Amino acid sequence: MATHRFAPAAWHSVLAKLPAALRVADGDTVITETIDAAGYDKDGVARASGPNPMNGPVHVEGAEPGDVLQVDIVRMTPIRATGWTRAALAGNVVDPERVRDLPPRDRADWIIDAKAGTVQLKDTVPGLEQLILPLEPMIGCFGVAPAGGHAISTATSAENGGNMDYRGFGPGARVWFPVFEPGALFFLGDCHAIQGDGEIVGTGVETAMEVEVRLSLLKGRKQVWPRGETGKTIYTVGNARPLDQALQHATTEMFDWLTGDYGLSAVAASHLMGQVVRYEVGNVFDPAYTMVCRIEKKWLPESQRPR
Amino acid sequence: MATHRFAPAAWHSVLAKLPAALRVADGDTVITETIDAAGYDKDGVARASGPNPMNGPVHVEGAEPGDVLQVDIVRMTPIRATGWTRAALAGNVVDPERVRDLPPRDRADWIIDAKAGTVQLKDTVPGLEQLILPLEPMIGCFGVAPAGGHAISTATSAENGGNMDYRGFGPGARVWFPVFEPGALFFLGDCHAIQGDGEIVGTGVETAMEVEVRLSLLKGRKQVWPRGETGKTIYTVGNARPLDQALQHATTEMFDWLTGDYGLSAVAASHLMGQVVRYEVGNVFDPAYTMVCRIEKKWLPESQRPR
Amino acid sequence: MATHRFAPAAWHSVLAKLPAALRVADGDTVITETIDAAGYDKDGVARASGPNPMNGPVHVEGAEPGDVLQVDIVRMTPIRATGWTRAALAGNVVDPERVRDLPPRDRADWIIDAKAGTVQLKDTVPGLEQLILPLEPMIGCFGVAPAGGHAISTATSAENGGNMDYRGFGPGARVWFPVFEPGALFFLGDCHAIQGDGEIVGTGVETAMEVEVRLSLLKGRKQVWPRGETGKTIYTVGNARPLDQALQHATTEMFDWLTGDYGLSAVAASHLMGQVVRYEVGNVFDPAYTMVCRIEKKWLPESQRPR
Amino acid sequence: MATHRFAPAAWHSVLAKLPAALRVADGDTVITETIDAAGYDKDGVARASGPNPMNGPVHVEGAEPGDVLQVDIVRMTPIRATGWTRAALAGNVVDPERVRDLPPRDRADWIIDAKAGTVQLKDTVPGLEQLILPLEPMIGCFGVAPAGGHAISTATSAENGGNMDYRGFGPGARVWFPVFEPGALFFLGDCHAIQGDGEIVGTGVETAMEVEVRLSLLKGRKQVWPRGETGKTIYTVGNARPLDQALQHATTEMFDWLTGDYGLSAVAASHLMGQVVRYEVGNVFDPAYTMVCRIEKKWLPESQRPR
Repeated sequence: MATHRFAPAAWHSVLAKLPAALRVADGDTVITETIDAAGYDKDGVARASGPNPMNGPVHVEGAEPGDVLQVDIVRMTPIRATGWTRAALAGNVVDPERVRDLPPRDRADWIIDAKAGTVQLKDTVPGLEQLILPLEPMIGCFGVAPAGGHAISTATSAENGGNMDYRGFGPGARVWFPVFEPGALFFLGDCHAIQGDGEIVGTGVETAMEVEVRLSLLKGRKQVWPRGETGKTIYTVGNARPLDQALQHATTEMFDWLTGDYGLSAVAASHLMGQVVRYEVGNVFDPAYTMVCRIEKKWLPESQRPR
Repeated sequence: MATHRFAPAAWHSVLAKLPAALRVADGDTVITETIDAAGYDKDGVARASGPNPMNGPVHVEGAEPGDVLQVDIVRMTPIRATGWTRAALAGNVVDPERVRDLPPRDRADWIIDAKAGTVQLKDTVPGLEQLILPLEPMIGCFGVAPAGGHAISTATSAENGGNMDYRGFGPGARVWFPVFEPGALFFLGDCHAIQGDGEIVGTGVETAMEVEVRLSLLKGRKQVWPRGETGKTIYTVGNARPLDQALQHATTEMFDWLTGDYGLSAVAASHLMGQVVRYEVGNVFDPAYTMVCRIEKKWLPESQRPR
Repeated sequence: MATHRFAPAAWHSVLAKLPAALRVADGDTVITETIDAAGYDKDGVARASGPNPMNGPVHVEGAEPGDVLQVDIVRMTPIRATGWTRAALAGNVVDPERVRDLPPRDRADWIIDAKAGTVQLKDTVPGLEQLILPLEPMIGCFGVAPAGGHAISTATSAENGGNMDYRGFGPGARVWFPVFEPGALFFLGDCHAIQGDGEIVGTGVETAMEVEVRLSLLKGRKQVWPRGETGKTIYTVGNARPLDQALQHATTEMFDWLTGDYGLSAVAASHLMGQVVRYEVGNVFDPAYTMVCRIEKKWLPESQRPR
Repeated sequence: MATHRFAPAAWHSVLAKLPAALRVADGDTVITETIDAAGYDKDGVARASGPNPMNGPVHVEGAEPGDVLQVDIVRMTPIRATGWTRAALAGNVVDPERVRDLPPRDRADWIIDAKAGTVQLKDTVPGLEQLILPLEPMIGCFGVAPAGGHAISTATSAENGGNMDYRGFGPGARVWFPVFEPGALFFLGDCHAIQGDGEIVGTGVETAMEVEVRLSLLKGRKQVWPRGETGKTIYTVGNARPLDQALQHATTEMFDWLTGDYGLSAVAASHLMGQVVRYEVGNVFDPAYTMVCRIEKKWLPESQRPR
């Protein structure tokens, strides 16, 4: 189980079947420095053009279509003392006629203090003088090459993951992606120092990070959409527009999980989901929105609880 | 500040300008027994036909259009040892072609143990033999008479509240409704012993409860959609379809709150909301879906924090 | 089959179970003068406040819940030489960020020449100097009292009709509404001299008209949503948001019609609808959007064609 | 202006920057035989796997990003006497709970008589014994390579066209696609003998055709979404989900066209569009739905009318 330091020579704005930039074995760890959503690196040097240039793809030896790639986000360390956001709510998250009331979508700069674990606006904004936010790193965009020879923009997301902009994808998260191409071909980038639900200004605090992930393979699992677990919960992820359809995907995937791996009947799965699911909003800004459906492990049938 | 025990002689399946069933003063407390969503009371006797028969309306002396009615949910006590749900996910929350895989929407009975604080299925369902859920009471449907002489079905919701089926509306919740008619004309009913996010089987555990609420008036506040607060957060509620529009309403209302009462500029409100909002899903079953937008009070401008 | 001249003393901004303003027999004709969407009459005098004040309700003797009310729009004659519109596309019909590019929603005046059959802007607008539109009268809002004691705003629409703003509802149209209350309680108003699909500026050319309708009852028909026919087509109407759901309602109603009255199997109805339906957009401005699903009568099974 | 007979050696299920299969000059005509949506050719031989295998790409000499590719559909001739459809409405076009009432999505065969110009079911379906539909050929999927190195599935559509399944794309149609890659890289396939609005059974009558198109370049035109014209109308095409967003794209593109090339002010464009646009539904089955916004040329400012 080796650890690879991966310094990309090029970045990609699609998730696609591209030549592997790194080859690793099942269970290996990858440490890599990402650049920000606009392509600027830790030194503020433009290395690629946006949106969301990706490090990768990483080829995981032995991964075959039908397998599942397990991604453990081990660590995310900011490597730049600055980040940026947009200074206005996105037009699509307010009542349509109210877009006229929104300010211009200017860029705003933020100070990231990795040691103190804080994030704050660089320039004083009246009313927010005291606003010191916690550093809550997350990966905005990651996933694997999609099926069918598609090359999907890193602006959006689908069954293979992508630009989900969900704040749950931070250190400690374990995420499972269905594998569609040999080697899985894993990509990551677009890290945020913090982000609210929905990514409703169209950005988190966009910055460069050193990210450590462990990549493992699971054989014989069937899944359509990304899944994940934390110590206490399992969850599924749906990506689509409108938000209603993202919710349908996430809900169907959870239903399939409970009636599949957990062996519940459709009635039992309905009873359980009906009274205990929790939904969380990833982004409502990108072409595909993201909805997460979560259940606490303590409610799962005991005999079949994972791990 | 009197306490009124209110025993309705009739129930309503609309929120509308109807003759007051009870008149109270600003700050008074009302204790009332609700019947379940199908109209059955604590003894299992059919008292009204569904959907969601309401106790009320309660006329609050002095309430005028433009005021805000503050509803504190003081206590909710189950008064029936049984509740019921539907045994299948609703068709609209799964991928359309998958509706074929859903079981019939049969009724299932649950045992509510108010002393133990538990809720469980009456009949054994394989895989759920151990499922003992906590009692987490909530009001499914409550609100005030709408504007314009409308009579809005208790199946749905709007600016005046209604059938929001949001599990956050339990004991301890403080909710503010805009007042559209003299006396506000407050209604409540449709209590659930527990419910997951989204009310995705179309019900929580539907039952009868004794509910204690305190009704107070706020003058000179402007709001369009329901708002609320907890000890640590403030929140807004949007009701509409699709979920995207419910989110737009909730987000716009929070934006108006921050730029209004809290005095933030549009840029400051955008910065704050972009990095700290949390969204929660009320129901995705009723004609209007419900989305909640929440912010922790600690992020609000200090000088203007409420209370 | 009498003809009634109906001059309302009051107007309503809800469709609801209200005291009848006129009682007619099955098959009678009603001639009435409507006021415009903002409540101004043929002389420009404010008679009611908006939105869309209705003439009615008209009680049709013998109408019972479960019947169908047939409305034949016999004639629509403009009775005011002016109409008005809004001068900007509605925010919800353009890409959200583009709302910033829209002009203010000012009011614009139009000249209606009933004899010449033309409609044109009152003030010169560069580029539109030559724009002379045909008079194409339509009823924006009409329908019957809804079920369940609801009082539905004339801003929106539902199973009972209402503010559908569909340009197909002009002279010659035959429309069927399900009856929910004794007497059906028919309302109409909000006439337009012309309107494009979608009512995308939020108005047609709003004006006052003399409208002649014939009201008849059909017994033993089952329908959920409005239906209609022209000489060569039959159609169904769905009202909801998003447009996808309006389309689902209209499509389901057509499916029910074909598999019900026309006796087709579900497979036959699918084949027919799949290759011959036409969709038309009513409004995409009001709270509920409107979609029409239409089939040419020549494709219907011969033995069961109506009339 | 040469005419090329193009017999593909391979087919593609993405629209992407792929090696040109044919190179033509501006103004040249291409005649090519397409295979059906499932990959079967005129002889019923499987030549490629679905969905919607494309002939192409055709490189048009001189085409540069920022140009517009004009596609004239000159002729479509069925080259197989059979087509096929699905025998059930798609789950997403009916009310969700009603999906349970739909038949299985079996395949049904149809007879195409090119000489007689008719299309009919191969096997007798009760109630449809007399159903003889007209041959109304259309291209289900066509367009150009998208921007950004994307490879977009032929199951869906975007700014570059793709699987729009709009019955207006038949012989006589002139369509303009924005060019994103050198040579434009034009693809086409997925021809239908007939199709209703919405493609609501998920197919038209899927078959193989000989298609003749003329490909020309326009320099200096700006457009974001596909546009087109007929003798009497101009139109724009939006592709997205929900249908509301497809409509927003099409409407915005028409607004840009009128305020751009036609020189109207935003107010004038709003007036014109508000009273004269017509919407047509392409498909409501594919991942992205398709909406068309159309205006009659007679309403355009005279001095700037095209041609």
